[in-house]
Amino acid sequence: MGKNIKKSSGNRIVIIGGGFGGLELARRLRKTPYQVVIIDRHNYHQFQPLFYQVATAGLEPSSIIFPFRKNFQRIKNFHFRLAEVDSVNTEEKQVNTSIGPIDYDYLIIATGAGNNFFGNKEIEKHALPMKSIVESINLRNTILERFEQALEVDEDKREEYLSVTIAGAGPTGVELAGTLVEMRSNILPVDYPELDFKKMKIYLVEGSPRVLNAMSEASSLKAHGYLEKMGVEIKTDTRVDAYDGETISLSDGNNIRCRTLIWAAGVKGNFLDGLPEGTMGRGNRIHVNAYNQVKGLEDVYALGDVALMTGDDAYPDGHPQMAQPAIQQGKLLANNLKAKLKGRSMTPFKYKNLGSMATVGKNKAVVELPKYKFSGFFAWLVWMLVHLRSILGIKNKFIVFLNWVWNYFTYNLSLRLIIKRDLDK
Amino acid sequence: MGKNIKKSSGNRIVIIGGGFGGLELARRLRKTPYQVVIIDRHNYHQFQPLFYQVATAGLEPSSIIFPFRKNFQRIKNFHFRLAEVDSVNTEEKQVNTSIGPIDYDYLIIATGAGNNFFGNKEIEKHALPMKSIVESINLRNTILERFEQALEVDEDKREEYLSVTIAGAGPTGVELAGTLVEMRSNILPVDYPELDFKKMKIYLVEGSPRVLNAMSEASSLKAHGYLEKMGVEIKTDTRVDAYDGETISLSDGNNIRCRTLIWAAGVKGNFLDGLPEGTMGRGNRIHVNAYNQVKGLEDVYALGDVALMTGDDAYPDGHPQMAQPAIQQGKLLANNLKAKLKGRSMTPFKYKNLGSMATVGKNKAVVELPKYKFSGFFAWLVWMLVHLRSILGIKNKFIVFLNWVWNYFTYNLSLRLIIKRDLDK
Repeated sequence: MGKNIKKSSGNRIVIIGGGFGGLELARRLRKTPYQVVIIDRHNYHQFQPLFYQVATAGLEPSSIIFPFRKNFQRIKNFHFRLAEVDSVNTEEKQVNTSIGPIDYDYLIIATGAGNNFFGNKEIEKHALPMKSIVESINLRNTILERFEQALEVDEDKREEYLSVTIAGAGPTGVELAGTLVEMRSNILPVDYPELDFKKMKIYLVEGSPRVLNAMSEASSLKAHGYLEKMGVEIKTDTRVDAYDGETISLSDGNNIRCRTLIWAAGVKGNFLDGLPEGTMGRGNRIHVNAYNQVKGLEDVYALGDVALMTGDDAYPDGHPQMAQPAIQQGKLLANNLKAKLKGRSMTPFKYKNLGSMATVGKNKAVVELPKYKFSGFFAWLVWMLVHLRSILGIKNKFIVFLNWVWNYFTYNLSLRLIIKRDLDK
Repeated sequence: MGKNIKKSSGNRIVIIGGGFGGLELARRLRKTPYQVVIIDRHNYHQFQPLFYQVATAGLEPSSIIFPFRKNFQRIKNFHFRLAEVDSVNTEEKQVNTSIGPIDYDYLIIATGAGNNFFGNKEIEKHALPMKSIVESINLRNTILERFEQALEVDEDKREEYLSVTIAGAGPTGVELAGTLVEMRSNILPVDYPELDFKKMKIYLVEGSPRVLNAMSEASSLKAHGYLEKMGVEIKTDTRVDAYDGETISLSDGNNIRCRTLIWAAGVKGNFLDGLPEGTMGRGNRIHVNAYNQVKGLEDVYALGDVALMTGDDAYPDGHPQMAQPAIQQGKLLANNLKAKLKGRSMTPFKYKNLGSMATVGKNKAVVELPKYKFSGFFAWLVWMLVHLRSILGIKNKFIVFLNWVWNYFTYNLSLRLIIKRDLDK
């Protein structure tokens, strides 16, 4: 009902989604006269770049997620609400949620992006996505269960239970593949002396001509070399066409028998019902102008993965769906909303590419900064530092660091746990 | 189907359940000629004494559970199987499991105890138990969700959403009550500035005449005093008769309106179908002799919470269902099984009471050792040391310790997370 949030002024900002963009915006509105209502379907912020380490039992979920309320403790004009948003009514200036309608003066849509299975229901049913912490835990459970199941199947079926196929060789796919290889060499044979892990194949299937397609060709090549040497079977220019839970049909005509298909092959914007016609653009993203205003609406903004800003000459197809554009848009929008209060004009958005990076394994990463490209051990250190710096919470930073050090020396974290809700009550 | 475990000798020991007793036994059979098969429905050992800290967002689940495979890495004649046990066939010497029948030469039943709702289906449906890590996570989720819901209900309903009732004032109930009080004073008002936590009542309902009924009257009184001073509403000599999810009916004729009822009021043995008639004793426990042999069976043993050994004069009703009797029985049984190999006779079990303890809150605990009883700050330190010592894994010990230190100084762990499986896919 949102009814218990008493309107404190004529300036209520409702933010849907506490991802990188929404959270950055909210934090920068702390000391303003705005009343801020943050709605999210989880009570925590999720640090997506490290989901793959949760999925591979390297990190604990709680180390990379952070309760929203801790961000906004003691702030009187901030209101967090745990709710699902169904639709928006831009006439009435209301958001319809699972706890009732919530009025807004300004609405910020920061709903991010979800998995894109390109309409293939069968793949959606059988493949395992990794776009939330819950999906990452589910993936961890499934991978571990497959090993348990492998113990009890006939010898000639073991390979399909042990093997893992990853669709999509962006940073997520590459990082997953690298980590799985390291598990295969170091920890799994020790945990399962009954199984022969030579039978565990790791396939990385990518539709474009190269891995890390969004990075430079040099970085692509470097990462490709790393992965190949580690023993990942890479198939570029190849798509997953079908999957029934047992056999993966590839666009090159080949099949892979495999009980675990991880889906890191595509995302689409979490569009919101009720927005005017013509606002939905490519990949279900919302058309916005240079101020992140939704096309045709004065008081509704969209930012981050769900926003499609095509006016930027360097990014005619919209900005990459990564943390940095979202954070930068959140920051600018906070400033613009503050400017509004003072009757000043808003500043248009200009994306500053701070670079991109991916890690392939221990001591192996590729980093592209605006002026430098490098790879190897030093890149790997930079990758860790940048990620540590971005994780919310001092204790989380410390725990993640501790886990990484432990992991580096022992390969033997005790997180190989299958924690499933439905087993008990 | 268990079919892939090749029998390595005529001496296969199958252990059902990797709790304190089962795990102790298995670890002590490491360097013997026995082939050991451990069956559990989880792939991890659970450290029950700290469940309440998981339920109250003080510890991460993974800090107090530990994967079985890590205990038995590289041991060739040990086999862990993730499976549910349906029944036992003592004629065929087989255990029927979710992965098929598994043969045994010796069977050890270490299935522990589960929640006892004394046949009240309505309470079972609405109350929240805490006998597994999954139930503890579920409890954490529910408590936090109630606060979120409280924000949106009418003012006069807030008390029933904020309040928590605990049925059962054994160590678990007392520890929960103390921790909830500390949350109420320190962290919740900061997280939820919109709510008035004076409305959060914490009720502790106990059927017997005193809290910590298994301890001495002096310790009971001390704990009672602590709790009362902290503001817990204690009702002894009172039982929960009914609960429909909203109203708790007490045996003294009073009602409490309360949306959260935690069930720590009773346990019953996880008896196994297929055991001969006459083996089930009080509280669904299995009658065993002084060697933990199940009544009337030569090669089947039961130990720990599920075993009922009545021959011990000091414990004519069986040993307390706690970690210590289980561990001591596991240890002795390992020795007895080793003696068997050498044709030596077995030693009867004699329980050595090492004492008991419970903590009520920061700097407050009661400890009873065989020769000393004490309470207060020093008891609290002893409580922490004993528990740290018992947690499996160096890293887990360290992480728990770190969390406790952090918590002690800040009251502000970032674990107030509602991680629910069913929200996503």
